[in-house]
Amino acid sequence: MRRRRLLVLAEGRSGDPHFGKTARGVIRYAPQDVVCVLDSQSAATEHEGFPLVRTVAEALRFGPTTALVGVATQGGRFPPAWRALLEECIRAGLDIENGLHEFLTNDAELMGLAAKQGVELRDLRRAPPGLNVPTGENLTHDATSILMVGSDCAIGKMTVALELDRESKSRGVRSEFIPTGQTGIAIAGWGISVDAVVADFIAGAAEQLVLEGVRRGGEVLFVEGQGSLLHPAYSGVTLGLIHGSAPHSYVLCHKADETVVDGDDRYPIPPLSDLVELHERISLLARPAQVRAIALNTRDLDEDGARNAVAEAEAETGLPADDPVRFGAGKLVDALGLTERTGVR
Amino acid sequence: MRRRRLLVLAEGRSGDPHFGKTARGVIRYAPQDVVCVLDSQSAATEHEGFPLVRTVAEALRFGPTTALVGVATQGGRFPPAWRALLEECIRAGLDIENGLHEFLTNDAELMGLAAKQGVELRDLRRAPPGLNVPTGENLTHDATSILMVGSDCAIGKMTVALELDRESKSRGVRSEFIPTGQTGIAIAGWGISVDAVVADFIAGAAEQLVLEGVRRGGEVLFVEGQGSLLHPAYSGVTLGLIHGSAPHSYVLCHKADETVVDGDDRYPIPPLSDLVELHERISLLARPAQVRAIALNTRDLDEDGARNAVAEAEAETGLPADDPVRFGAGKLVDALGLTERTGVR
Repeated sequence: MRRRRLLVLAEGRSGDPHFGKTARGVIRYAPQDVVCVLDSQSAATEHEGFPLVRTVAEALRFGPTTALVGVATQGGRFPPAWRALLEECIRAGLDIENGLHEFLTNDAELMGLAAKQGVELRDLRRAPPGLNVPTGENLTHDATSILMVGSDCAIGKMTVALELDRESKSRGVRSEFIPTGQTGIAIAGWGISVDAVVADFIAGAAEQLVLEGVRRGGEVLFVEGQGSLLHPAYSGVTLGLIHGSAPHSYVLCHKADETVVDGDDRYPIPPLSDLVELHERISLLARPAQVRAIALNTRDLDEDGARNAVAEAEAETGLPADDPVRFGAGKLVDALGLTERTGVR
Repeated sequence: MRRRRLLVLAEGRSGDPHFGKTARGVIRYAPQDVVCVLDSQSAATEHEGFPLVRTVAEALRFGPTTALVGVATQGGRFPPAWRALLEECIRAGLDIENGLHEFLTNDAELMGLAAKQGVELRDLRRAPPGLNVPTGENLTHDATSILMVGSDCAIGKMTVALELDRESKSRGVRSEFIPTGQTGIAIAGWGISVDAVVADFIAGAAEQLVLEGVRRGGEVLFVEGQGSLLHPAYSGVTLGLIHGSAPHSYVLCHKADETVVDGDDRYPIPPLSDLVELHERISLLARPAQVRAIALNTRDLDEDGARNAVAEAEAETGLPADDPVRFGAGKLVDALGLTERTGVR
């Protein structure tokens, strides 16, 4: 992916912490690529340090090359109202990067318009050709694979992986962030959206990602997690990713104040200690993996509440816990034994 | 799917118990649809009571309307040698049903030839349009959902579901077989191949299948299983199917003499009692499900060996066990409590 100057389309969502995942991720972890954010519904003039604009015309003043679709809706469908906005971007000569399941490149009208304007439409979730089942090479490479797992989706598993990667690199560890979803791909510039591949090839895609991380020089791989083992919709992706990335260790991510999956009372989150055991038991016998640390998202708690939540998680699981965004990733990286140049299993 | 007269293409595989799954399934459970079997590599003159032919010209004597691709290869790719055979079938005026991941309907040359000959190419694994995540209706219908799970793929989970369905119907139970893979679809004439949908929609597809079974009048639904929770390639499909079909009960299927997954020593099968517990623990808390019986495949054992295997499985798990193909499905249907007109949970 060539270097691009991003107009982040956060239409109607710039204030919504859950649905603006792609927008927030790129703004936080690839700020060098962002020039401004668009949300016609917002009254603000800036968003996390970037100019917040209401129209494409306004955005053009900042010289974007590419408009990034910054929302992720349930199931990945495209809100109809977005079409006009996308057409406007294309007419303004911008490439589009899109992370939804609904592909722009399948849309003859948008493709025609893009061809006429000489711009490119990139579907970040489009599966690459030639996927297949795993070969078993995920068990034979020399790197240490560490997978983020969680009690729910959209609680910050990608963020934890990025924070651990950043902290590890700062210690001289040759680590790589392994992107498995549209936001991770938008941030890292490579990857496969494992939730968008043919179901039989989830594990095969995950294996390919891990091997690509090794080819990129990774000795420690922080694999972005997806979904949750007890998520009623996305658990299949989660388990395929577990077996395909064949982790040596897990980091279990949890939003401290959440008690149900996806905000739905029908799906309670079990105790953290049950989740620890469930992940360890579902590991391949060929690659038994242990949960080595708990990463808490304490965003909606105050400082005292956050420290209490960390202490409670440690008491319940007997594992080191911390919120790597709030308190830094040092304690979790210590828990993973990453004090040397290469990973310690 | 209209009633068709099937030429079963088992090219090079009519003697292979593992890879001829689709051929064997249709021959056993939809014999009324089959007219002959083709395998140019075989010296036999009949296959399970059907004429075995070596050429398409020979097959035409039996008046087929449709050629069914009867093999399932690892990962679902099309063996190149098959192309000539398929072209010959199309030129002979036969429709084609294909259960592999590689779609005939994506092949411009074959599609052109089919159009010229006025025949139809049907990809049984092609996902229907409009799939999405589950709605939660899988928790609110009135039927009893019973999912086949297993220690491995290709050990007879579909067969067990079909045998249980047949036995239940004979007792006056309003049961339905719920097809989730290409062979089940070829047998039942409807269904979705859940291993071929976009990974995020596995559970949503499984929910749709269960609800379709209810619409068809099913009060007890025998859901065809896929893969295995500890299969290194297919476990994601397995877990998505578990959460989407939201079973009230499981039947755990196991091939009595198998100790490793997919014939690969790297992936040992854990003890049956561990698998029982793993399935029960991975159930949604909203729909806790228990393993109610063990279905053993004792095909490769002699009679004494089979009876010993059944006794051992019962001793190990404390659950009723039997081989429904060898000894009849009565004991397993009893174990599920299906003695009344409707299911008992």
